[in-house]
Amino acid sequence: MTVPKTHRRVVLVRRPPGEPAESDFRVEEVPTPQPRHGEVLVKVAYLSLDPYMRGRMRDAASYSAPVGLGEVMTGGIVGEVVASQNDAFKVGDVVEDRLGWQEYAIGGGPSMRKVDASLAPISTANGVLGMPGMTAYFGLLEVGKPKPGETIVVSAASGAVGQVVGQIGKIMGCRVVGIAGGARKCGFVKDELGFDACLDYKAEKDLDAALRAACPNGIDIYFDNVGGEISDAVLRNINFFGRVALCGSISQYNAASPPMGPRLLGTFVGKRVTLRGFIVTDFAGLYGPAMRQMGEWIKAGKIKYREDIVQGIDKAPRAFIGLLRGENFGKMLVKM
Amino acid sequence: MTVPKTHRRVVLVRRPPGEPAESDFRVEEVPTPQPRHGEVLVKVAYLSLDPYMRGRMRDAASYSAPVGLGEVMTGGIVGEVVASQNDAFKVGDVVEDRLGWQEYAIGGGPSMRKVDASLAPISTANGVLGMPGMTAYFGLLEVGKPKPGETIVVSAASGAVGQVVGQIGKIMGCRVVGIAGGARKCGFVKDELGFDACLDYKAEKDLDAALRAACPNGIDIYFDNVGGEISDAVLRNINFFGRVALCGSISQYNAASPPMGPRLLGTFVGKRVTLRGFIVTDFAGLYGPAMRQMGEWIKAGKIKYREDIVQGIDKAPRAFIGLLRGENFGKMLVKM
Repeated sequence: MTVPKTHRRVVLVRRPPGEPAESDFRVEEVPTPQPRHGEVLVKVAYLSLDPYMRGRMRDAASYSAPVGLGEVMTGGIVGEVVASQNDAFKVGDVVEDRLGWQEYAIGGGPSMRKVDASLAPISTANGVLGMPGMTAYFGLLEVGKPKPGETIVVSAASGAVGQVVGQIGKIMGCRVVGIAGGARKCGFVKDELGFDACLDYKAEKDLDAALRAACPNGIDIYFDNVGGEISDAVLRNINFFGRVALCGSISQYNAASPPMGPRLLGTFVGKRVTLRGFIVTDFAGLYGPAMRQMGEWIKAGKIKYREDIVQGIDKAPRAFIGLLRGENFGKMLVKM
Repeated sequence: MTVPKTHRRVVLVRRPPGEPAESDFRVEEVPTPQPRHGEVLVKVAYLSLDPYMRGRMRDAASYSAPVGLGEVMTGGIVGEVVASQNDAFKVGDVVEDRLGWQEYAIGGGPSMRKVDASLAPISTANGVLGMPGMTAYFGLLEVGKPKPGETIVVSAASGAVGQVVGQIGKIMGCRVVGIAGGARKCGFVKDELGFDACLDYKAEKDLDAALRAACPNGIDIYFDNVGGEISDAVLRNINFFGRVALCGSISQYNAASPPMGPRLLGTFVGKRVTLRGFIVTDFAGLYGPAMRQMGEWIKAGKIKYREDIVQGIDKAPRAFIGLLRGENFGKMLVKM
């Protein structure tokens, strides 16, 4: 395979105080590097766009270091090894790693894993068989701890994580109610993915009442991807001994400081609610069996997935801004 | 012992929308009842006043039924059996039960327990060796799960629960920082109870900064009795993998609907914070060994306690209103 002398990448040039703009990023053309000893060169096939990246644009302490100004934006990719100086990877291997928003990348570190392209389309290594799928798997099973017959509500239900959460919930014998924005997303979640119900937060005038109607036995588990007013409505209807898997708060990611909302902690005392924040990598030691289980479910048709793919790395900034607005419909990917 | 023909009790006559007033209660004189088969008559020695009672004045679903209008206010008491039609209790037994705000009460049900008056003053059956002590014990050990060297912050640190939380924390080898209102309370918490530090939330202009100074290694466990702005400051400084024992939200109890505050759930994701609401009776099956352990600690001088006692049941409404304002200094009791 001929490797071009230059390739394109996207760097962060400004830390937006609120919603990011395309001008906060720069698409630049740079020389394609050569792998040194222990390294490989990867031709990126897909870049994954995920909400957590908004946090990396912030110059603040978090569970990962921020992206520096002028540095390549962080991001998971799946691609093909096109040159190798690492015995563990050979040319032609399909690999997955967090190598950033670029068309070619140097890899070969300990976090790089081979992807079995015979199992499923390789894009799933960034989705249902990757970080978002594992987030759904461990967040629901290890944090939410569902029991058959319980009711699960998941926000951003048609997103990369939400769609998997709900389908695993159905496999576990639960009633699953999604929350998504728009009739198309809700129809997909209900009709294609088999959720019991899906509430359109943009159309519902009274989300509290809609939740009560959709969850006649209350809400035992809330898998929270969004935070804000949607979560307020769910949490007002959480059951005694309810569990909340705090996965993300996309509605708050563009806020410079926490917006105001109703103080709900006091309501969790008498109801004995447990809320737990988690990050998928906390469960990294358990990925192997979880991936195999997910693979079986996909093969058996029990887990379906939807991707939202844009073409070309220059489209990545705009697609990411749209993701934060909820404009995507399914797992957001950039095809190179 | 001569039992008077009439006795006094306090009934709820109005559900206050905000802060209760004395006129929401009525002190009334009623005939003293006679125990029937299976019952005992208890002469109340102490009535316990506790923040949870504010919730019982509200006509809303909770973990216990509300007090009806015209009904005796709910409350734990310790007293002496003065007449018995129940083989399990004889005249002269000291007993503890939730028999309400009254000078004489009919008891003998399954929740009544005998108090060993040789162990400690009987008032402790409403405090350190009763519900508040058990709340501290299980909330800290089972919900907070302290490890030696960790830092614990407890709000309402001089209150019935807080004072015990901090002392158990010290026994567990933790750094313990209390938060209380006023120099007297803080001095007591630090000098008498042995907390490492105590912050006066009324005097501190910047509670965030004071917490950072008092907790150089951050906050691993927050035992929350108060909610509101004090909790905001603590939660902004909670450590990665921190635990929050949600015990109460006294700052919110008089609010008709949840006041607004900063949305902090999103900050708990990356930090993997766990927040868990609990009620002491969830651990009722474990009271026996916990009481014995507490008794040993008290005997060894490792757990001290302070009571705030008013005399006469007619003083109960005013004392309870003061408790909600933080005017008490130690475990609030009414001596009959």
